[in-house]
Amino acid sequence: MLVVMRQDATAEETRGVLAAVESRGLKAHSIPGAQRTAIGITGNPGPLDPALFESLPGVWEAIPVSHPYKLVSREVKPDDSIVPIGGVPVGAPGFVVVVGGPCAVESREQTLTIAAGVKAAGAHLLRGGAFKPRTSPYAFQGLGEEGLRILSEARDLTGLPIVTEAVDEASLDLVERYADAIQIGARNMQNFSLLKRAGRARKPIVLKRGLSATLEEFLMSAEYILSEGNYAVVLCERGVRTFADHSRNTLDLTVVPAVKQLSHLPILVDPSHGTGRRDRVAALSRAAVAVGADGVMIEVHDHPDRALSDGPQSITPEMFAQLVGGLKKVAAAIDRAL
Amino acid sequence: MLVVMRQDATAEETRGVLAAVESRGLKAHSIPGAQRTAIGITGNPGPLDPALFESLPGVWEAIPVSHPYKLVSREVKPDDSIVPIGGVPVGAPGFVVVVGGPCAVESREQTLTIAAGVKAAGAHLLRGGAFKPRTSPYAFQGLGEEGLRILSEARDLTGLPIVTEAVDEASLDLVERYADAIQIGARNMQNFSLLKRAGRARKPIVLKRGLSATLEEFLMSAEYILSEGNYAVVLCERGVRTFADHSRNTLDLTVVPAVKQLSHLPILVDPSHGTGRRDRVAALSRAAVAVGADGVMIEVHDHPDRALSDGPQSITPEMFAQLVGGLKKVAAAIDRAL
Amino acid sequence: MLVVMRQDATAEETRGVLAAVESRGLKAHSIPGAQRTAIGITGNPGPLDPALFESLPGVWEAIPVSHPYKLVSREVKPDDSIVPIGGVPVGAPGFVVVVGGPCAVESREQTLTIAAGVKAAGAHLLRGGAFKPRTSPYAFQGLGEEGLRILSEARDLTGLPIVTEAVDEASLDLVERYADAIQIGARNMQNFSLLKRAGRARKPIVLKRGLSATLEEFLMSAEYILSEGNYAVVLCERGVRTFADHSRNTLDLTVVPAVKQLSHLPILVDPSHGTGRRDRVAALSRAAVAVGADGVMIEVHDHPDRALSDGPQSITPEMFAQLVGGLKKVAAAIDRAL
Amino acid sequence: MLVVMRQDATAEETRGVLAAVESRGLKAHSIPGAQRTAIGITGNPGPLDPALFESLPGVWEAIPVSHPYKLVSREVKPDDSIVPIGGVPVGAPGFVVVVGGPCAVESREQTLTIAAGVKAAGAHLLRGGAFKPRTSPYAFQGLGEEGLRILSEARDLTGLPIVTEAVDEASLDLVERYADAIQIGARNMQNFSLLKRAGRARKPIVLKRGLSATLEEFLMSAEYILSEGNYAVVLCERGVRTFADHSRNTLDLTVVPAVKQLSHLPILVDPSHGTGRRDRVAALSRAAVAVGADGVMIEVHDHPDRALSDGPQSITPEMFAQLVGGLKKVAAAIDRAL
Repeated sequence: MLVVMRQDATAEETRGVLAAVESRGLKAHSIPGAQRTAIGITGNPGPLDPALFESLPGVWEAIPVSHPYKLVSREVKPDDSIVPIGGVPVGAPGFVVVVGGPCAVESREQTLTIAAGVKAAGAHLLRGGAFKPRTSPYAFQGLGEEGLRILSEARDLTGLPIVTEAVDEASLDLVERYADAIQIGARNMQNFSLLKRAGRARKPIVLKRGLSATLEEFLMSAEYILSEGNYAVVLCERGVRTFADHSRNTLDLTVVPAVKQLSHLPILVDPSHGTGRRDRVAALSRAAVAVGADGVMIEVHDHPDRALSDGPQSITPEMFAQLVGGLKKVAAAIDRAL
Repeated sequence: MLVVMRQDATAEETRGVLAAVESRGLKAHSIPGAQRTAIGITGNPGPLDPALFESLPGVWEAIPVSHPYKLVSREVKPDDSIVPIGGVPVGAPGFVVVVGGPCAVESREQTLTIAAGVKAAGAHLLRGGAFKPRTSPYAFQGLGEEGLRILSEARDLTGLPIVTEAVDEASLDLVERYADAIQIGARNMQNFSLLKRAGRARKPIVLKRGLSATLEEFLMSAEYILSEGNYAVVLCERGVRTFADHSRNTLDLTVVPAVKQLSHLPILVDPSHGTGRRDRVAALSRAAVAVGADGVMIEVHDHPDRALSDGPQSITPEMFAQLVGGLKKVAAAIDRAL
Repeated sequence: MLVVMRQDATAEETRGVLAAVESRGLKAHSIPGAQRTAIGITGNPGPLDPALFESLPGVWEAIPVSHPYKLVSREVKPDDSIVPIGGVPVGAPGFVVVVGGPCAVESREQTLTIAAGVKAAGAHLLRGGAFKPRTSPYAFQGLGEEGLRILSEARDLTGLPIVTEAVDEASLDLVERYADAIQIGARNMQNFSLLKRAGRARKPIVLKRGLSATLEEFLMSAEYILSEGNYAVVLCERGVRTFADHSRNTLDLTVVPAVKQLSHLPILVDPSHGTGRRDRVAALSRAAVAVGADGVMIEVHDHPDRALSDGPQSITPEMFAQLVGGLKKVAAAIDRAL
Repeated sequence: MLVVMRQDATAEETRGVLAAVESRGLKAHSIPGAQRTAIGITGNPGPLDPALFESLPGVWEAIPVSHPYKLVSREVKPDDSIVPIGGVPVGAPGFVVVVGGPCAVESREQTLTIAAGVKAAGAHLLRGGAFKPRTSPYAFQGLGEEGLRILSEARDLTGLPIVTEAVDEASLDLVERYADAIQIGARNMQNFSLLKRAGRARKPIVLKRGLSATLEEFLMSAEYILSEGNYAVVLCERGVRTFADHSRNTLDLTVVPAVKQLSHLPILVDPSHGTGRRDRVAALSRAAVAVGADGVMIEVHDHPDRALSDGPQSITPEMFAQLVGGLKKVAAAIDRAL
């Protein structure tokens, strides 16, 4: 923490800040300047809240220095983490993972058809929601455990490990039993009870970024999971909320190199939610691979116009196969491979 | 839904859209224009997704018409709802409710002192968190049930009904037993499992707006609660996330008249979180009353500099008393009273 | 500037930063910590760019300390500035100024009628655009100098000083000749050529906040004007752009106390653009006065449904009279007066 | 425009809306529904303002249908526009243009060195600012005409056509004389006087997106230029302003396919401003090419640490050469070429 005094701060006010710092067991370092004095604070075990000092007389501003996360930080663990999902090494050097499948598991037939389609097209993992968080209480909320059974059957059939969302502790118990990775959705990114439970799960977690989460908050939510003992966390960018109204969300691809700099965790990109429109998914998938994401997560439906949720952003298995073909070329261009 | 065709759409493409509408059991109304044709759709029980039609050939754009909420809508219930919290009629005509108390219940002594202070200053309800959703897993997470017991004791002593947050189903069970109203925090505004449980609670709910929630999403989250049978919902604006960096959040006071137009539910304003700074709480509280909010919710701490959470935005009981005095005058200026 | 070193930074890297600081003629202050070292920099005449240091080896982060503005800062001039516009003392202690008038000057008759109406209702200043910055090249762009002549006539008739917008240097020359204050619109807040010209004008400037301007940028644009010698600047908040779609813009009332803390300049609020809807203007005007703004700026039209621009957010002279009556009461509640 | 009536609207209110529509010379189409009535409006020459109807009794909402732009629309001109800049065909099928150069022209030596560097690395166009719009009045504002002369000399030496910014009408006159393309910066995107002047220029315009511009506003600003007769417009995405604080701006790559759908104009991406950090420029450049942009615009400096502006986001000629090599591979992967 750096405390910056006002230009007209009195010597007494500066002494007051020094005393306040020391009364908290911290060490104060005075930095006199031409125009004003600043006071560096060290010795704090975790981050300090700027406002603790900003309310003291004579203080102009207090500026935090340390990041609040530890376990997720690349400073603590310099090497990239590899998170195996059912044997697929997400985050492995040079490897780009492709996750495909329906937004929601709607029926056995639909799921098995799509699973076979994405497998044939080259996907490594199958996604599909059995528990769906929906904005409206009147919308389809998923098939629940029946959906998980269908996903298991699809895995048996195709060999693809499955990733599916848990929305509360009860559904997490079930998902943990059936799935190969547990997804925590954007709207639950700061559902801290659920994060703690995820931290005690014996399966990897795919954590989606909240709609207005800063990078620090995103990493802190991952920190919740690691702090409970589960180090197998994969991040996923899926677009943030801005004023821009030409797409459902604004896909923030710059977050990929930013995560790579700060953290050792792998990060995927979900261009389906990120754009909200089928006709933009392929272009943004290519961009995601080109920017260095560890993989993409794409919604596929055999009849998008009849999908019970997110039909407009779902692509057909045929479009998906073509998309995977395109991604292979882009991956090769940056010396990676699907 | 209104489907707008491209200028160069063929007659066949227009017929295709008409057929698609009818195949869903809906009614299509063709509106030929000088430059292009539009197609109105009626007969849909709930809202339609624009993208269902935007992917059809010849379609330029599909524009939704209906709002997705029902029970919270002023169209369904034209009169203002009054939600009694422990006998205090939140939303009653001409009445402005004042909720005060610590961010977190830290100890018996701290809570009883603050409770006595806010009571003396004229508060109607006592707030205070026993379960705290914190961005960091390493931060103080609240006293849990012990905190609820302290709040009950504070109620016994002061007569103030209590409002406190639930963060998951387990804590909601406890809060429901001890408190007069159950708060759902901003980060849980779209924790739909928790909303459904809140809808089955026998206590009123104070629902805070999410950091990036549109008004429609905010009302849909209230709809979740009402749809389960609990009609006692109070909304609370607490600032949204924007690019502006001069305050912790951007308090969106325009949402107050907007809610009043669309819904019958009462709405409070929380200027403590809305500004994040003690020295701005009084000014924004006055603005909240002046704009027509049904009340304000304010963090009070006897030693803000020692507070375990949100100290910087907490005001002292003395500042609170002065603030309440100021609010009385502003309320009177618009023919309301505290 | 505070430069924070990485935890694993070598002593050589730290020396490299110290050398880089000194090579720029600045003074480095080393602050060794338990986990990492920080380096305070002083002696810089203006603000430094963090990225200058962030690219050096071993550096984790560089954090700026000084604000870049000088003349607008309350540190430089602790007392509130009073800006007289045609004799009306904007920013005077206890005084709330009311500016009313049409969005655009459309005709002599319309303008004189509205001017008489706002005068009768108690406005202190008349607003009205002769040069209109419009999003569409096909929209009404204002009457130009003819509009300025009409405004002058309205001033002669009512005695109200006039405020009107300049959109480029040519129009500023004309506005300077006719008007009592020159408005710089939100879309030109960072038109630095225009700001410099405004800084050489012999009339006060009303500077509106840009749609995505931070407080620092807003103050820096005012600094441009002051730095050219014109100290008569009035700021105006008119809403910022966010994801929220229930109002045309999100009115950021918290900026009012924030400006008051950092700067000596007066600040108005424009709830007409801030909300974009006639039926919300009165409520947000009351909130603006209650939060401590030095005045409000309101669009008034005798036939809003026939207005050539911004009709939907314009109120009638009758509504305006009622609004002013309401504002008097709110102002009185905070010991101020219109 | 579609006007949606309230559920409880009376027949008289509906007749009132129909009358209001017809009194404006427009045609009303009544669409009765089960729950409520909607009224389609046709015959309007340009877009209507929803609020004109929203203030009528019984109206719930008015929803605009037409887009306000014409000349930039792909509906009017289905084929991609190719804009030649000094012979370089920006927007040509399969071609990815690379624009490189310093943020600001600082000296003859610096500019010639960098120009030779970017030429050697494979750039097609040279960028460099002679007139710099700076947030602070105290920052380096560019060399002016002297800078333009240096750029001309660099063109003579390298053969690279030059793109440089104009910030007002006076500078545009000069830039038009010296440069091959005139850039309008983000902060001037809605400086409509400057846009009109650009529309009368005899050189192509590179129009950068404003920091909070919607796609519609971006296209409308281009429409200003086309409507004055200059059809040679290249758009440029350079990041928008959001809550995200891990990058200087949030680069919105989804706007590229969105522009391609709505307009025939070419679009570049500027990852230097888009990220604000040197170490992210290469990754985002690859993403820009992969998403389908017609080119990239990159800041290059031989001594970024001594740059007078935007040093932190500038890369060296060596890094630029490497970046161009990488872009060639990504372009090839999508069947395009530099």
